[in-house]
Amino acid sequence: MSSQKPSIPRGTRDFGPEKMIRRNFILDNIKQVFQKFGFLPLETPAMENLSVLTGKYGDEGDKLIFKILNSGNYLEGTTTEDYTKGVKELTSKISEKALRYDLTVPFARYVVMNRGELTFPFKRYQIQPVWRADRPSRGRYREFYQCDADVVGTDSLLCEAEIVLMINEAFARLGIKDFTIKINNRKILTGLTEAIGKKGCEAELCVAIDKLDKIGVGGVVEELKSKDFSEEAIHKLYPFLEITGSTEEKIAYLKEIFSTSEVGTKGLEELEQVLDYVKKFELTQPNVEFDITLARGLSYYTGAIFEVKADGVQIGSISGGGRYDNLTGVFGLPGLSGVGISFGVDRIYDVMEELDLFPKTTSTSTKILICCFDDEAVTYSLPVLKRLREAGINSEIYPETSKMKKQLNYANDKKIPYVLIVGSDEIKTGNLTLKDMLKGEQERLSIEEIISKLL
Amino acid sequence: MSSQKPSIPRGTRDFGPEKMIRRNFILDNIKQVFQKFGFLPLETPAMENLSVLTGKYGDEGDKLIFKILNSGNYLEGTTTEDYTKGVKELTSKISEKALRYDLTVPFARYVVMNRGELTFPFKRYQIQPVWRADRPSRGRYREFYQCDADVVGTDSLLCEAEIVLMINEAFARLGIKDFTIKINNRKILTGLTEAIGKKGCEAELCVAIDKLDKIGVGGVVEELKSKDFSEEAIHKLYPFLEITGSTEEKIAYLKEIFSTSEVGTKGLEELEQVLDYVKKFELTQPNVEFDITLARGLSYYTGAIFEVKADGVQIGSISGGGRYDNLTGVFGLPGLSGVGISFGVDRIYDVMEELDLFPKTTSTSTKILICCFDDEAVTYSLPVLKRLREAGINSEIYPETSKMKKQLNYANDKKIPYVLIVGSDEIKTGNLTLKDMLKGEQERLSIEEIISKLL
Repeated sequence: MSSQKPSIPRGTRDFGPEKMIRRNFILDNIKQVFQKFGFLPLETPAMENLSVLTGKYGDEGDKLIFKILNSGNYLEGTTTEDYTKGVKELTSKISEKALRYDLTVPFARYVVMNRGELTFPFKRYQIQPVWRADRPSRGRYREFYQCDADVVGTDSLLCEAEIVLMINEAFARLGIKDFTIKINNRKILTGLTEAIGKKGCEAELCVAIDKLDKIGVGGVVEELKSKDFSEEAIHKLYPFLEITGSTEEKIAYLKEIFSTSEVGTKGLEELEQVLDYVKKFELTQPNVEFDITLARGLSYYTGAIFEVKADGVQIGSISGGGRYDNLTGVFGLPGLSGVGISFGVDRIYDVMEELDLFPKTTSTSTKILICCFDDEAVTYSLPVLKRLREAGINSEIYPETSKMKKQLNYANDKKIPYVLIVGSDEIKTGNLTLKDMLKGEQERLSIEEIISKLL
Repeated sequence: MSSQKPSIPRGTRDFGPEKMIRRNFILDNIKQVFQKFGFLPLETPAMENLSVLTGKYGDEGDKLIFKILNSGNYLEGTTTEDYTKGVKELTSKISEKALRYDLTVPFARYVVMNRGELTFPFKRYQIQPVWRADRPSRGRYREFYQCDADVVGTDSLLCEAEIVLMINEAFARLGIKDFTIKINNRKILTGLTEAIGKKGCEAELCVAIDKLDKIGVGGVVEELKSKDFSEEAIHKLYPFLEITGSTEEKIAYLKEIFSTSEVGTKGLEELEQVLDYVKKFELTQPNVEFDITLARGLSYYTGAIFEVKADGVQIGSISGGGRYDNLTGVFGLPGLSGVGISFGVDRIYDVMEELDLFPKTTSTSTKILICCFDDEAVTYSLPVLKRLREAGINSEIYPETSKMKKQLNYANDKKIPYVLIVGSDEIKTGNLTLKDMLKGEQERLSIEEIISKLL
């Protein structure tokens, strides 16, 4: 076998120890918040039947689903005609499975398949990679983690309030202090279409407004014109896009305008109820902002929608979600209302790196390395190593009696904060040399003293 | 869109909350052991370039690799001739990527690609799913987790000893008390081929001996005959297969027989050194057993090999590993020695279930559910809920003011041990009703008393 220069697929990444420790710091904290709020873990297979995924993400989405070749002789039962008909025809015959595209559809599939055994309201969190055949670019990957929590089987607005609390606690734990939770309600957007005389055109309005941040008011207007929104409708829309004031003021203003729109009024009431619940939780830092221009592209939302942005960092939303009323309908279980939140792990990572928020040491890393001058020192050190570990201290021994410089370099490279140097003198006295790698200082201590120092 | 009855691919599984909590109990404990021994996390992409995987697992393995269809118009550049030539020809043109088959090859690929930045010896652990297009059956899945730790870049036998310690600590943590670590050395098996006059036939011998447990001595003999082992060679093999006595006795016996086999003698010396290191660690429970019939099928092992079996449970090995000298050679980096261990998560799960070793409650689960009689109680409860969570207690509120029976059923189904009942009387006095769901008892307590009781 000739040797080959290996590579990894475009748009995928290896996560070496340093990155993994940081990613796990993020994921572990979010996981603990989910658990504290009563959400329990779920994992679904990477592969789903293609029929489960197809048609759930629009035509564009369908194209971005990674399909898996049937195993064995997958051409059996196909004909040259299938081949000549082209990709679409052939794919349906040679591929039955695909990689999951998000965590929402597999979750809906799971709920429907297990509805008999589940206790509702069902609260689950799910942290797994998803795959999309997008063109890779900066910050856009073909494999990335999603980190979702959803509760289904209740339309209680307490769930929305709890999501606001979870967002707050998650970012507090991560040290991201300045962020804004934008909130809106799809019913308010529906009310808006009615107010500008474009009832029924909610989808087009949401898709356009969703891009406000990127393309500005001018861009939104252009897009709406191309979707047959009249001058008059667009003229009526302006005041909404430029609405100012406190959340209370905005709501009061809209209540008047929406007085004839039942659904719009309902949306405002829901929003008020959610904000009221949040207040009742006695949240000290209520950084929640009503933003009528928040639309979120996904068409399945029907109630509250959320989005979180880190202030002072040029990175898009780091979390988002909302309420949906019919996620499981497509699998034969209609009328199950739910609300969910998704944390954007890659972007949170970038924000934390930019703001230098990662802790310098973590419980994952090695705390102390034993370095031995000779074999006798190794023999002496093994019970010492055992004692350190029994005390719960992450410890390792350099496995060879190499030059001390090489051993110390290993500790440096791995950012191990302490080194224990063992030679004949240490063995004689029982006092070991503990070197603080950061300060560069060293002292002679008994093993008991060393353990209590490191704990 | 008509509704469809969803399903999941054969050989794959959903892991609902109950299973996830148990699996995470296993994985978290093993992870903590890895970290305590200085291993750091690594994750590689689910998709690898097909060229990285092909040819690494034998012809049979190659067939079991799940291939991914190229995205977009994957037939572009193919011809009807490619189609008619059949699967092998067409696959190479329409599929460039595949799902990883194990964690070892991606690890080797990672080490080679990052050799410039890595500090050797490099110690990593990796816990990720792998995919194999095997025929699904009881206990055999198409998606399953592997849980590996390896150290590469040193041939120090201290690493083998540390693996024995890690195995001990991992199973101790999981509560699996009775297990045996079988150890052998590929060099001893090579010595064995020399001793029976079949030098060079190590691969055939290993494959046959590996099945000893399943097919017995008779079956092994049959297989060896079919591989052209002479009556004489097989006759010479018998005493080895039936060797008895303590590990020391076995080693002494073999040393004599291997006196003319350099490699066999080396294998015995390595084994002695590993066992000596383990002893020096002052391991109190040295359940390590030298087993000359332990072969492990994988051809890349060159030194020590391990396998762990749970005593008194009819389940195959629950952990295994060994030393290899040339894992990265195929990717152009020869001479890098390493040793690794892999924990079989699915089998460990089954053993623990059979022995009823899973803890009844875990830190993942909800500890207390607040149940409210009416909206006033909800308003009163939200700050209470916040205080419980601030104290670090996993808590939830039933999101609707449904019938109390329904709310209590929810707690029962989710195995939530405590329920806090809030009604007008509780609000008046400030003493809340805490119900112990296991004992069925309830008492009136202040929120402070409740918190200190639950902590």
